Amino acid sequence: MDEFDLIARHFDWPAHRPEVALAVGDDAALIDPPAGSRLTVATDMLVAGRHFPFDTPPEAVAHKALAVNLSDLAAMGAEPLAFTLSLGLPRDTETDWLARFSGGMRRLAERSGCDLIGGDTVGADTLTLSVTVIGRLPAGQALTRAGARAGDRLAVSGHIGDASLGLAVVMQPDTVPAGIEPAGREALRRRLDLPEPRLSLGRSLLGEASAGLDCSDGLLQDIGHLLDASGLAATIDLSAVPLSSTARAWLAARPGDLERLVTGGDDYELIVALPPGIDVSRFPELTVIGELVDGPVGEIRERHGRALPTRRGYQHFENAEA
Amino acid sequence: MDEFDLIARHFDWPAHRPEVALAVGDDAALIDPPAGSRLTVATDMLVAGRHFPFDTPPEAVAHKALAVNLSDLAAMGAEPLAFTLSLGLPRDTETDWLARFSGGMRRLAERSGCDLIGGDTVGADTLTLSVTVIGRLPAGQALTRAGARAGDRLAVSGHIGDASLGLAVVMQPDTVPAGIEPAGREALRRRLDLPEPRLSLGRSLLGEASAGLDCSDGLLQDIGHLLDASGLAATIDLSAVPLSSTARAWLAARPGDLERLVTGGDDYELIVALPPGIDVSRFPELTVIGELVDGPVGEIRERHGRALPTRRGYQHFENAEA
Repeated sequence: MDEFDLIARHFDWPAHRPEVALAVGDDAALIDPPAGSRLTVATDMLVAGRHFPFDTPPEAVAHKALAVNLSDLAAMGAEPLAFTLSLGLPRDTETDWLARFSGGMRRLAERSGCDLIGGDTVGADTLTLSVTVIGRLPAGQALTRAGARAGDRLAVSGHIGDASLGLAVVMQPDTVPAGIEPAGREALRRRLDLPEPRLSLGRSLLGEASAGLDCSDGLLQDIGHLLDASGLAATIDLSAVPLSSTARAWLAARPGDLERLVTGGDDYELIVALPPGIDVSRFPELTVIGELVDGPVGEIRERHGRALPTRRGYQHFENAEA
Repeated sequence: MDEFDLIARHFDWPAHRPEVALAVGDDAALIDPPAGSRLTVATDMLVAGRHFPFDTPPEAVAHKALAVNLSDLAAMGAEPLAFTLSLGLPRDTETDWLARFSGGMRRLAERSGCDLIGGDTVGADTLTLSVTVIGRLPAGQALTRAGARAGDRLAVSGHIGDASLGLAVVMQPDTVPAGIEPAGREALRRRLDLPEPRLSLGRSLLGEASAGLDCSDGLLQDIGHLLDASGLAATIDLSAVPLSSTARAWLAARPGDLERLVTGGDDYELIVALPPGIDVSRFPELTVIGELVDGPVGEIRERHGRALPTRRGYQHFENAEA
């Protein structure tokens, strides 16, 4: 099948948004931004075997490639508008795989209000996906990583660490504690494969949170990014990090895996700074885990005084929950 | 080197455009479109060994990845505004290679007025690049593939076919005619490696040409795209297709290579339809090669009556210049 047939068969979806004047099919798409709007743009590339296990179902590959980009829009407080998809496909990719891939992507795109406006398909040795999303914000507004102040509370949405345990379920099944039932393993795997971008939460935090980003590299590392951008340090309470019941059961059996949960990444939750005047109970998805303080920029200290690692590759994390 | 160091060292260029409120470094970039503007978005993925020879210099890889995308903006009549770059890098990529790559991309970006606003770097088995460009048009305007009418002239910019001969120079050096001197071979190779997007020509054709696109897949195939979108057929004069002096010397020695020139692709010239009222001498870069006519949609006939192939993979092209 050549590229044109492939696009026509699997990716020629109708555009729904009034801002999209021309979608797939010309040299470039056309977007007419409404007056008084600002656009925001994010991009992520995913490679099979590195960003998702090789045996990930095609629907989940598609979902994840779009979801991780939508998560960046959520972190800016933006509304999704449109996206492009570039696909590097191995020669032996089957039509059925593409149909399932396309279906998975279209479902997330449509329920997110995000039109496919362009793309490219090329041959590749390894399945490679590159998505660029464009979102919309009110003029002059955005939830960036900078802007937090000392005294703001640090909060995260949902549960942290399930995706990193899901990766262990797939890649190191012998490390899964015996007490984690098949349903629990499946739930962890779903959190790895099918992250849900926190779009409505992000929009509701716009103008409320003082800073924010999404949690994709690992909780501690991403908090470090917020601290670097805002010029602050943080004190956090590791025991307050919100965990799913499955993750709590896992940690009860393997307490040393706490490091994996707070550094593992792929959570796609939001991390935000909340000024003192904001009533956190207005945002039931959020859990306060600490506070932003003046101090060495980027440093995270546990409430009991221990410095925590914020950089990937930093290995000294033993006894962190002692 | 981890991803953050790499971005900081090689890709943290300053943004220049007033529309770019926030460039690299947050979850997403921010663009404030001026009132009365329309945005246009294009994306292309390039894979080493498929879209450029493995031994292509890093400056040229970078240039080409951005240039082919800017060419799509040129084909819409748009002014470049910003771009994102996702890089899949083999593990053994050297710092020197990245420095040269970054320099080559920055030079083209700066002289095109196109700010780098985001990106991603990931590990990959094969060097893979995905660029998404955003351009700007006056509200309500665009040069699309649709809109040509019977009676319009068909014109192309520059010279066609040099890049396909440049590919032969690299991949099949034994097919290069003996009369093509080293300087000529080098000129052909440069046309393959360093395409020059026709940005100012594209903008000058906005509101003048009735339809247009860039020539990337091969002259005949791309004319076919314009015909499909405009619902027309075309009559062309193959002997009028503008060729460089090197390409003419090559064809004198190997007349059968005409097919390669008009189907080979990678030209990144513009193909446009010019209504009867437009004086083509106002556009010295353009050469008229034929006319748009009513007829079976997508069909291209040579002036002497022979139908020409418009689809990739169609092999029957013998004696086309008889």
